[in-house]
Amino acid sequence: MMPFNVILFDGFETLDAFGPVEFAGKLSDIYRLGYFSSGGGTVISSHGVSVNTLPFSEIDAGGVMLIPGGIGTRRLVNDGAFIARIKTLAERAEYVLSVCTGAALLAQTGLLNGRRATSNKLAFDWVSRHGDGVEWLGEARWASDGKYHTSSGVSAGMDMILGFIRDRHGEQTALELCRRIEYIWNEDGSDDPFAI
Amino acid sequence: MMPFNVILFDGFETLDAFGPVEFAGKLSDIYRLGYFSSGGGTVISSHGVSVNTLPFSEIDAGGVMLIPGGIGTRRLVNDGAFIARIKTLAERAEYVLSVCTGAALLAQTGLLNGRRATSNKLAFDWVSRHGDGVEWLGEARWASDGKYHTSSGVSAGMDMILGFIRDRHGEQTALELCRRIEYIWNEDGSDDPFAI
Repeated sequence: MMPFNVILFDGFETLDAFGPVEFAGKLSDIYRLGYFSSGGGTVISSHGVSVNTLPFSEIDAGGVMLIPGGIGTRRLVNDGAFIARIKTLAERAEYVLSVCTGAALLAQTGLLNGRRATSNKLAFDWVSRHGDGVEWLGEARWASDGKYHTSSGVSAGMDMILGFIRDRHGEQTALELCRRIEYIWNEDGSDDPFAI
Repeated sequence: MMPFNVILFDGFETLDAFGPVEFAGKLSDIYRLGYFSSGGGTVISSHGVSVNTLPFSEIDAGGVMLIPGGIGTRRLVNDGAFIARIKTLAERAEYVLSVCTGAALLAQTGLLNGRRATSNKLAFDWVSRHGDGVEWLGEARWASDGKYHTSSGVSAGMDMILGFIRDRHGEQTALELCRRIEYIWNEDGSDDPFAI
């Protein structure tokens, strides 16, 4: 079982987290999902969903790390202690996935420097100010570069996680998930109808 | 502000609830989202998401009621007290939306009798045993009949809520939400790639 650690914080975007969770969680013989926040306890999503979390100190590092976006990222990019924790966790993770403006948090760690990445197109100007020498893609549903996988806005995270699952477990596994979840997958990460 | 009451229970399917929530919650000047379970307190989704809820007794009836599906419905269809509460709440609601096997709970109240409805195609045999004289549609992404809107499996709930928003607030409002959430909407409720 591989840990699949979902990073939550006040003002996380609900679907950024729970879209990918829906798919990865269906592979319950492969991924063990956990929900974590800096200090643990209750965090509230941008839609008022109150979620109970464990503290970062209890994360079983390695495995997959998922960083959602949301209004909460606007404050957290300037929280040096938080970014330092995210950096350490991301360095120890086998795979790091971000959705929407979660890419700003990841870029702020410096770990995307020199890599290809994307984010929500409506927040692109803001997100792409972070990091140094990140190759920000204005046209990508999601982008993969080494262990880092970044998606465009909100619902693009679901297409990304399916791409990730296809890469790791094969096309048939991804398509079987689509059938169970009745999801119409946008399979091509470079096909971005919201491109700028 | 119209209440948008999300009904949760142990073993609810994560995306069934939080897909529609993502869209309705973006119309924060129209809908006031709340998360409720029978007795209130913590409920755990099928993916281990621990969510804090208020009890049914604190629901501001009227407005929209959203009933997700999930493994938890298998037990709850036989819980007479729960079904009676759901029936009362649904009768008082202005609109009732179900996703996936949430339709079994709604059908069990009898309120879908004589109406058109749909559900997840992989669970269709089981769901369609509930209710009496429900016109179960084996080919529908979602179905609307009066104040009742039922969707197919999991991710179809997002297409349904957009259809609901289009009906109530116009096509432009729905499309603007798609742009913000970067969602590729399947706009035609009768076009069902997972039809049986």
